[in-house]
Amino acid sequence: MKPKVGFMGLGIMGTGMAANVLKAGYPLVVYNRSPERAAPLARQGAEVAASPRALAQAADVIIAMVTGPEALHSLLWGPRGAAGALNPSKVFINMSSVSPAYTRELAQELAPTGVAFIDAPVSGTKKPAEEGTLVILAGGQADRVQAQEPLLLTMGKKVIYCGEAGQGSMMKMFINLLLGLMMAGFAEALNFGQLGGLDWQAMLDTVFSGPLNCGLYQMKAPLIQAKDYPPAFPLKHMTKDAKFILDTAYELGAPVPGGHLLLHLYRTGWAQGWGDQDISAIARVLEHLS
Amino acid sequence: MKPKVGFMGLGIMGTGMAANVLKAGYPLVVYNRSPERAAPLARQGAEVAASPRALAQAADVIIAMVTGPEALHSLLWGPRGAAGALNPSKVFINMSSVSPAYTRELAQELAPTGVAFIDAPVSGTKKPAEEGTLVILAGGQADRVQAQEPLLLTMGKKVIYCGEAGQGSMMKMFINLLLGLMMAGFAEALNFGQLGGLDWQAMLDTVFSGPLNCGLYQMKAPLIQAKDYPPAFPLKHMTKDAKFILDTAYELGAPVPGGHLLLHLYRTGWAQGWGDQDISAIARVLEHLS
Amino acid sequence: MKPKVGFMGLGIMGTGMAANVLKAGYPLVVYNRSPERAAPLARQGAEVAASPRALAQAADVIIAMVTGPEALHSLLWGPRGAAGALNPSKVFINMSSVSPAYTRELAQELAPTGVAFIDAPVSGTKKPAEEGTLVILAGGQADRVQAQEPLLLTMGKKVIYCGEAGQGSMMKMFINLLLGLMMAGFAEALNFGQLGGLDWQAMLDTVFSGPLNCGLYQMKAPLIQAKDYPPAFPLKHMTKDAKFILDTAYELGAPVPGGHLLLHLYRTGWAQGWGDQDISAIARVLEHLS
Amino acid sequence: MKPKVGFMGLGIMGTGMAANVLKAGYPLVVYNRSPERAAPLARQGAEVAASPRALAQAADVIIAMVTGPEALHSLLWGPRGAAGALNPSKVFINMSSVSPAYTRELAQELAPTGVAFIDAPVSGTKKPAEEGTLVILAGGQADRVQAQEPLLLTMGKKVIYCGEAGQGSMMKMFINLLLGLMMAGFAEALNFGQLGGLDWQAMLDTVFSGPLNCGLYQMKAPLIQAKDYPPAFPLKHMTKDAKFILDTAYELGAPVPGGHLLLHLYRTGWAQGWGDQDISAIARVLEHLS
Repeated sequence: MKPKVGFMGLGIMGTGMAANVLKAGYPLVVYNRSPERAAPLARQGAEVAASPRALAQAADVIIAMVTGPEALHSLLWGPRGAAGALNPSKVFINMSSVSPAYTRELAQELAPTGVAFIDAPVSGTKKPAEEGTLVILAGGQADRVQAQEPLLLTMGKKVIYCGEAGQGSMMKMFINLLLGLMMAGFAEALNFGQLGGLDWQAMLDTVFSGPLNCGLYQMKAPLIQAKDYPPAFPLKHMTKDAKFILDTAYELGAPVPGGHLLLHLYRTGWAQGWGDQDISAIARVLEHLS
Repeated sequence: MKPKVGFMGLGIMGTGMAANVLKAGYPLVVYNRSPERAAPLARQGAEVAASPRALAQAADVIIAMVTGPEALHSLLWGPRGAAGALNPSKVFINMSSVSPAYTRELAQELAPTGVAFIDAPVSGTKKPAEEGTLVILAGGQADRVQAQEPLLLTMGKKVIYCGEAGQGSMMKMFINLLLGLMMAGFAEALNFGQLGGLDWQAMLDTVFSGPLNCGLYQMKAPLIQAKDYPPAFPLKHMTKDAKFILDTAYELGAPVPGGHLLLHLYRTGWAQGWGDQDISAIARVLEHLS
Repeated sequence: MKPKVGFMGLGIMGTGMAANVLKAGYPLVVYNRSPERAAPLARQGAEVAASPRALAQAADVIIAMVTGPEALHSLLWGPRGAAGALNPSKVFINMSSVSPAYTRELAQELAPTGVAFIDAPVSGTKKPAEEGTLVILAGGQADRVQAQEPLLLTMGKKVIYCGEAGQGSMMKMFINLLLGLMMAGFAEALNFGQLGGLDWQAMLDTVFSGPLNCGLYQMKAPLIQAKDYPPAFPLKHMTKDAKFILDTAYELGAPVPGGHLLLHLYRTGWAQGWGDQDISAIARVLEHLS
Repeated sequence: MKPKVGFMGLGIMGTGMAANVLKAGYPLVVYNRSPERAAPLARQGAEVAASPRALAQAADVIIAMVTGPEALHSLLWGPRGAAGALNPSKVFINMSSVSPAYTRELAQELAPTGVAFIDAPVSGTKKPAEEGTLVILAGGQADRVQAQEPLLLTMGKKVIYCGEAGQGSMMKMFINLLLGLMMAGFAEALNFGQLGGLDWQAMLDTVFSGPLNCGLYQMKAPLIQAKDYPPAFPLKHMTKDAKFILDTAYELGAPVPGGHLLLHLYRTGWAQGWGDQDISAIARVLEHLS
């Protein structure tokens, strides 16, 4: 029999992920700070919990998918927080994007409850979340992670085991550093080409005909061309991740000259008011300097 | 009947390109500053010219594929240079990587000879050069470029028309800016991940399972892992291109913060003595800072 | 009658500062984690407290001058910490370099004790600390700051009032951002000049004859020339400050492209093992890339 | 008896410099592309030459102070250019800011005329030019430079001998790299401080009370505060110098991460339309990103 799943955080990502858990036949209870976002899932058969505590009491496996440490902390230790209902018979999976250092602290703070803790952030944005094709970057005790693979694979096409708790988050930092750099590089090259009089379609042909061709550029080119950036991955979330990346690199003593440029550009974009647009709106920062 | 082709410059790229012209049945005459590099092509049936002038006299279409403006200038206007033999019945195609500004100057300097001038740098490195799967970025009068497509397609899988003479070089700057940024970003992310304790294979799995997956990373990952960098595209050539990119961006007033970082990192790698290794040796620069 | 002063933290800076308080006739009690550093002051007439708590009980005005938030936290809330002895009749002055955000948190955490809280980091390094010529950047309630001016002026030549608690730290971030950028710029220019064949003395003559001449460059040039960097301000402390600066800029949405470069260069220097040398050892980072 | 001096280039700098030569009693002939700029000097007793050639024929020592290589080239080898009248009995002093590589080329191009060539760019802007307090950075044969010291000291307070021809320009690159970095750093720190709520006067007090105090900041602070930037040193000229610096660093293999940032920021400022304002208008670039 399938365990009962509690899903906290029904934003751009969480809504699709929770729906896929439900579709796969898991009993589901959901919680969101703004309760109206739970309605569609309720119509599909999910229970709606009145508080994180109630959710954690009702569920065997509790998943959190929120925007960062503050939101996560509030779900766990805020008023009627989930932490009070965690115990050794339950599993807590954090899928939110946070830093490895924070994840390790979280693991220590949760240790007294005895809950099994897995950190499992995801690679992929809105569409893969809806289609259940995320890549799930899992950290934690190997057997514990393995036991949750069937559940995780309702949300993703692949689970990559990354090491102990914290290493899932580290992998997320790794892949998002690369994502951010590729995105910013694409925007910079396109802006440079346009100022140099190149035709848009000829530029894309050149990129898509060779070894630089990739899904990211296929997805983002139309947004940049249309100068319209509906958020698959909001620029402000990428900015927060860029800050976690720099914090992590600082601790590690890892040189991240590109990461510094990344945070500078994305933070500028957010300061200009473009935080709720897609990460591809980084193109606007370059245009703003032209 | 096929026109006779003269090919000057038999380096990493030129050797494979000239061989493909020959294989396609074009009569071929070659010239290289170090004549021993012409021997393999001679064995396959190519004539070897004693000088650029002799080559240009013998050929209908003259192609140059050398390391930059100095080498090109010397072939054209050096002792027994090709320029003296160019005339309105001939076509000159520069496939070397140079700046758009230099290409426009070159077009003006060649104008008095009446030769048809095409600038046609390529996207792709050693392997596509050998396999005839380069992407050819062609600038010049549209009908002139079209007339040469059959010849160009012996070396490449695709010809992308980029506009008037100079715009082929501009497209090359565009694609190499993106290439350089993607390469440096990959090296930085991998170094960051390793310092953070991630497993190499798990990192590649994560990259290759999602929208960042691309031919470039498939090709370069094994070199970085093995810390062995046989040159498909030498780091010093990328560095020269990065300088042309910055020169071009300066003229255009195009913001290229990533381009600046690129030149800084690659020039450092060259100064450290790694210029003759592959561009993926940029990983060494990051390691050197760790 | 002069209030009794408690001074915690007898490092490079604190030793000189505490000595000046004593010389000015204030009764002094000191505490340092490694007690041997208190011996010279004891010989000059200072009491030595056995714990931060004991110090805070004995003193009217408690000063902390340590390396960062962790050390400060431990003095205040660690075993036998000072916080337990603070009350509305006492004044607590933090002179350590921390971020404005941390200072505001600290003010809130201390509020329940009723102690008067002043944040008063300093501009200046070892020599001005010894000579009592620091510039003191004071934040807090204006009348409270004014009341402490006589004491503060035993350590410094000037007190600059910066606003409410936290703004002293903000001013410290401001001046250290400028300091770090000037230092790194000097090192970069000198390295560039040397590689370009310029004579060391001619370079200094040029700098010292014009509007770029300043005390900083007068002090640091001999260290860089001698390639010997005894710490007046250790590189690792500057690095920590650079991190606080970026953290602060991130919150403010302030663009700090130079600040990013600063952290990258100094963190690299620390990772290379030069953290305990003077900030002017940033010259080594540039040389390491040449 | 004093030699007759020919002065070409009567811009912001040249006007003051030529006036000081005249005031010191040297017979003076001037030339400027826009002849109306010569009128004030004519009223003070200078001859006005109809062409660079006429000036060079009339003068013993020919000085050029123009905006860069193109202008210089045109004066020397353009229609009725000065080069045709140079000979071994004359001295040619280039005081314009150009790259060391260009200066070495220039020396070679002038060699056939037999003229004594000195490269002598200056450190200092409008006011020192008017007051005759520039610092003159002289390259060339040591005895030739020494022979011109009396003349050079009419324009400057000091002559610093930098080595053979080209090294004056190299020293200019060195000092302008430092100038640009100090200027950009000051603008960044002030913008950061303001966004952090610091009072303008308190910030300046902090800078001016310690080892970062310098003439540059004394001069530029009022402009940044007033947001009004009358050009003492136009931003576009600093931008050109920054490009020469990067070109020179590229040849030398010198790491100039700050130099890269410099060119990025200043070129952006120029692209935004602020090229004719003072270099301190770099503050606008930072504000534009806030």
